[in-house]
Amino acid sequence: MSSPLKPLTLWGHKTGPNSWKVALILSELNVPYEHKFLELAEMKEEAYESLNPNGRVPTVEDPNFGGRVVWESGACIDYVLETYDKEHKLLPKDETTKWTARSWRDFQMSGKFDRYVPSPKSTSLLAFPTDLIYIRIGQGPYFGQYSFFINYHPEKLPSVISRYENEILRIVGVMDKQLSKTTYLAGEAMTYVDLMWLPYFIVAFRVPDVKWEERFPSWGRWWRGLQGREKVEGVWGEWMGLRRSVIGR
Amino acid sequence: MSSPLKPLTLWGHKTGPNSWKVALILSELNVPYEHKFLELAEMKEEAYESLNPNGRVPTVEDPNFGGRVVWESGACIDYVLETYDKEHKLLPKDETTKWTARSWRDFQMSGKFDRYVPSPKSTSLLAFPTDLIYIRIGQGPYFGQYSFFINYHPEKLPSVISRYENEILRIVGVMDKQLSKTTYLAGEAMTYVDLMWLPYFIVAFRVPDVKWEERFPSWGRWWRGLQGREKVEGVWGEWMGLRRSVIGR
Repeated sequence: MSSPLKPLTLWGHKTGPNSWKVALILSELNVPYEHKFLELAEMKEEAYESLNPNGRVPTVEDPNFGGRVVWESGACIDYVLETYDKEHKLLPKDETTKWTARSWRDFQMSGKFDRYVPSPKSTSLLAFPTDLIYIRIGQGPYFGQYSFFINYHPEKLPSVISRYENEILRIVGVMDKQLSKTTYLAGEAMTYVDLMWLPYFIVAFRVPDVKWEERFPSWGRWWRGLQGREKVEGVWGEWMGLRRSVIGR
Repeated sequence: MSSPLKPLTLWGHKTGPNSWKVALILSELNVPYEHKFLELAEMKEEAYESLNPNGRVPTVEDPNFGGRVVWESGACIDYVLETYDKEHKLLPKDETTKWTARSWRDFQMSGKFDRYVPSPKSTSLLAFPTDLIYIRIGQGPYFGQYSFFINYHPEKLPSVISRYENEILRIVGVMDKQLSKTTYLAGEAMTYVDLMWLPYFIVAFRVPDVKWEERFPSWGRWWRGLQGREKVEGVWGEWMGLRRSVIGR
């Protein structure tokens, strides 16, 4: 199938998850796009902030509709779906599933996996003034520092770390409970929200000593099924390749 | 104007901001609703989790459409707008404004004002195991503790507090810059996102020593204009009354 569409521009980050959520949706819908990667400093330049006033990624620019600009990952995904998923491949058609999916969409955004790591006081390379650094994983500005911090052994405030690891496990537990009742998050058919929930698991998997599939069997069935999709494999492979080249894993 | 609609149920919390975002939208649209308030423990009961698997507020139940259930504040607002704002009073009709508004909607959710406070080790009433408590303000489970913590003078980690106060000021700065260019966040007409951004300012205003209108003049014009709306005044007054009765301010 050849497409008459001009490629959309997806402004993103090589290692952080947020633009990859949008890439998964575009790829599954066969919408052509070019994933352009920004460094933190570039996100704060006027050229980019004229597109995205918050200076974060992702942003989508669509040359097929006069260069329309949409920012924030959820809004980008909504735009791509409403514009390019007329056949309702990922966007539910019936109202009940539509609103269930919308609820899970926003839960992904509000319940995303944040993590605390202790500040590496001993390094002179990055002198942070606090005892604890809050990493909002996936938001561009913080993500570049993540691989540095995450490898730092938690010594000073392990109870804080474990508090947030427990929150990650609670959220996956909510998913697992839902997936014990329905095949996918919003019902019996796969929707965009299943794809949206994938990228942040690169963070969840850093929680040590969790036997994921044993502890969350319904989640495990869901996870394996999605990872086995051709388009998901393609985007995921590209992302993991970039991550290895930038942060070594 | 009498309405043939049955009142929607809005599950919320008396003091936290999230359900009040939805209340502002419902009120401006003259959609009848009953705001029912839950305590944290009730949110985690099976009866409520059968509506909202994450056990948080808000959730909307609509008896006019077979008891349809939508949860997460953004999803609730989208549902109310698509269902009850056919005249596009708050939901933009033109595509450009629609997607700009959707971007600001998600920025409100992802950029909301989080805050750190030191743990009150000296109290025996609440014995927390950590040096620092992360308060995701507005999310039900954490909010009940907020008024207790916020009055605790930051001694131990003032640099962490100030880091997040700076983030609050950065976000208001992004708003102010936009509002120096356009009358409202998404353009020249008021939309739902302007209303969505109001409630979290009860948190922002806790940052000490900020001359808000002097520092953010365009924001100040916007803020005063919205607070002067009859419906906003009504909902805000109800909320502040409940807050005073529960947490004394």
